[in-house]
Amino acid sequence: MGAVFTEFATHDVRFPTSRDLDGSDAMNVDPDYSAAYLVLGTDAGDGLEGHGFVFTIGRGNDVQRAAIEALAPYVLGRAVDAVLEDLGGMWRELVYDAQLRWLGPEKGVMHMAIGAVINALWDLRAKRAGLPLWQLLGELSPEALVDLVDFRYLTDALTRDEALELLRASVPGREERAAALRERGYPAYTTSPGWLGYSDEKLVRLAREAVAAGFRQIKLKVGADVDDDVRRFALARAAVGEDVRIAVDANQRWDVADAVASIERLREFVPWWVEEPTAPDDVLAHAAIRRAVSPVRIATGEHAHSRVLFKQLLQAEAIDVLQLDSTRVAGVNENIAILLLAAKFGVPVCPHAGGVGLCELVQHLSMFDYVAVSATVADRTIEYVDHLHEHFLDPVRIVDGAYAAPAAPGFSAQMRDESILRYTFPGGAEWAEGAAS
Amino acid sequence: MGAVFTEFATHDVRFPTSRDLDGSDAMNVDPDYSAAYLVLGTDAGDGLEGHGFVFTIGRGNDVQRAAIEALAPYVLGRAVDAVLEDLGGMWRELVYDAQLRWLGPEKGVMHMAIGAVINALWDLRAKRAGLPLWQLLGELSPEALVDLVDFRYLTDALTRDEALELLRASVPGREERAAALRERGYPAYTTSPGWLGYSDEKLVRLAREAVAAGFRQIKLKVGADVDDDVRRFALARAAVGEDVRIAVDANQRWDVADAVASIERLREFVPWWVEEPTAPDDVLAHAAIRRAVSPVRIATGEHAHSRVLFKQLLQAEAIDVLQLDSTRVAGVNENIAILLLAAKFGVPVCPHAGGVGLCELVQHLSMFDYVAVSATVADRTIEYVDHLHEHFLDPVRIVDGAYAAPAAPGFSAQMRDESILRYTFPGGAEWAEGAAS
Repeated sequence: MGAVFTEFATHDVRFPTSRDLDGSDAMNVDPDYSAAYLVLGTDAGDGLEGHGFVFTIGRGNDVQRAAIEALAPYVLGRAVDAVLEDLGGMWRELVYDAQLRWLGPEKGVMHMAIGAVINALWDLRAKRAGLPLWQLLGELSPEALVDLVDFRYLTDALTRDEALELLRASVPGREERAAALRERGYPAYTTSPGWLGYSDEKLVRLAREAVAAGFRQIKLKVGADVDDDVRRFALARAAVGEDVRIAVDANQRWDVADAVASIERLREFVPWWVEEPTAPDDVLAHAAIRRAVSPVRIATGEHAHSRVLFKQLLQAEAIDVLQLDSTRVAGVNENIAILLLAAKFGVPVCPHAGGVGLCELVQHLSMFDYVAVSATVADRTIEYVDHLHEHFLDPVRIVDGAYAAPAAPGFSAQMRDESILRYTFPGGAEWAEGAAS
Repeated sequence: MGAVFTEFATHDVRFPTSRDLDGSDAMNVDPDYSAAYLVLGTDAGDGLEGHGFVFTIGRGNDVQRAAIEALAPYVLGRAVDAVLEDLGGMWRELVYDAQLRWLGPEKGVMHMAIGAVINALWDLRAKRAGLPLWQLLGELSPEALVDLVDFRYLTDALTRDEALELLRASVPGREERAAALRERGYPAYTTSPGWLGYSDEKLVRLAREAVAAGFRQIKLKVGADVDDDVRRFALARAAVGEDVRIAVDANQRWDVADAVASIERLREFVPWWVEEPTAPDDVLAHAAIRRAVSPVRIATGEHAHSRVLFKQLLQAEAIDVLQLDSTRVAGVNENIAILLLAAKFGVPVCPHAGGVGLCELVQHLSMFDYVAVSATVADRTIEYVDHLHEHFLDPVRIVDGAYAAPAAPGFSAQMRDESILRYTFPGGAEWAEGAAS
């Protein structure tokens, strides 16, 4: 008998980031960065666990945890080898549960819960293989990769055969690109200077520090008040000069007409992209805004709930930059589908990150993309925010404005035991003390 | 001091419908029709409660219940009069909770939970007014109605002023239309004959019975196997003749090319509409299918997660029939927005119903639409399924193929206490006995 899954433990972990307005933007005014966290254990006796989570911003993290718990019957008691060898099959089992599917389908709390399970399984598979996830994925054959992807609802834009062709075209050079990643890392940009809750002085100081640290792109939050946006953008542009890219992020604040008018005001400061101008699932509005403000570039994706939405954003020519997120969709498998769609349409992927652990996870996806899918880093960059990395066993390392390639086995997903304990809500010491004070 | 909310009680209620394959279709193969159920109580001493729920199909009903529970702090302790007088404001408070919003935004489990709370508040408001909800809504001024609607993300298709104009145009004749509803009811069609799990004989028998009972439209489930679909459609057409409309429902089974090919096969039997041909949030795919199969009519909406998605379906000319659902979006307020959008685009609304209590709720929305919004029943019809009505205090009544206008105060949402008790999962007698046998 081979090993079976014997543990499916969930945790409600919350960091009190709202105390300092870290992470504040026009829609998310007081986030407590949180993780609905999952640990998968086996009886293999190898000491290896699979870790995964959904990032949330506080209230509702308990609901997200309950959704992950609902998936325990799909894992507990199952044979580890069989599950890990067919993660494409496991993805379909979870996504097509004929009763749970009603709660989406393929969106929101239940879909993200599937992502946590799938990502935890990938973490375990990579640990067992002794490889960082990006490298494990980058060594899979094109056939094995397309087996991970569910092409249902995608075939009007991307068929399995087209995906195979794309992947086969990128097989030559895989090793060279992996070596380049180990040497130079993957380009990063930073949002740390630009949170709405920060003063002008803090914004300027952090922008200068970012450039001094090697970043060639920063990002500012906009959308609460356009006069404030103009003033802050002008200050940032003066602080970093013409050669550093500045993206702006409206966090869904505008309707179409507002977006067009606001972007006209911001245009003189040369935004590298305008992110989330409106409702994240409004494909047609993004397309209308993009047509109206061209050549200003439009980005979105951190709240795009499935591969079907990304497909439409690409088909409608609604975006110039695709911002996938590691815990918004149903895990690694669905993000591979999204990377393939982006490659098919020739749109660069610049992932959303920050929060808790999103940088740790998503670096693996971009590095895999470079090795085995798009085979380029041109105009690609991963968001970086310097919050909360100390809680992870294998935190991201930024070297000269780039993500250093992870070398440890796994998905870099594992949070420190003492952090889980301290920040568990509401019983952990951090919250119990906060309640007492 | 006025009354405050003192009770926010939730229940996980599940009916074992999978035992008989009632409700089986190509995607939903073994549903246990369920309700994540909410009761709001006050200290007013009038004995009135607000009842609301989210319909689910079994597993995950506990997750849905947890999401409703997360909203208790928005209700408990609040002044009843103030909340009920400004349900537009309450809707915005719930939808724009800066932390919970991350879990959607505006989709899935968390959004449906808001719907349960909003609908329960409307139930209470209508009971306090001594009116059935359709009549209460139908007597509100155009100004009061637009105050209930959040026009954010809608203004590229429908502004507040345009909505006001629409509603004002329908003020004349409100009383006559309400009287007509009391006299003749609102047209219904029935899905009872067409579940995939039924034998050909049962299909034919139930189709004939439906016509004999006065229905002028029935619906068949398709999408599992196209040869079966053709055979069953031919049998149904032969059973009911040319004059009875037969809609078909693919429950999201097809990609674009499959949908077009399958609809070509079914075309000779004259489908009145083809419902959910593909992924419910794939606006562009619905539009592509509609263009390809025209003049066959395309319907969707029971899984459309928000007003923003309905807006896009209308803008893209993707649908001929809009099928809103009473518990999929964030309650009455959002459905008023959707009715206004449909009226603006001139698309008939034929709501999804069935399940548990969906017929009870949605009849109020269609009747309100007739009285105060579209002012027509032309090509409008509400789905009817004859399951589980006996569990409600004020069950729907079908008379000669039409929904009789409800006369009891409220939203017809209240389930019998003894039903809640018996079908509570997993502790209720129905489930405890099932486990024992």
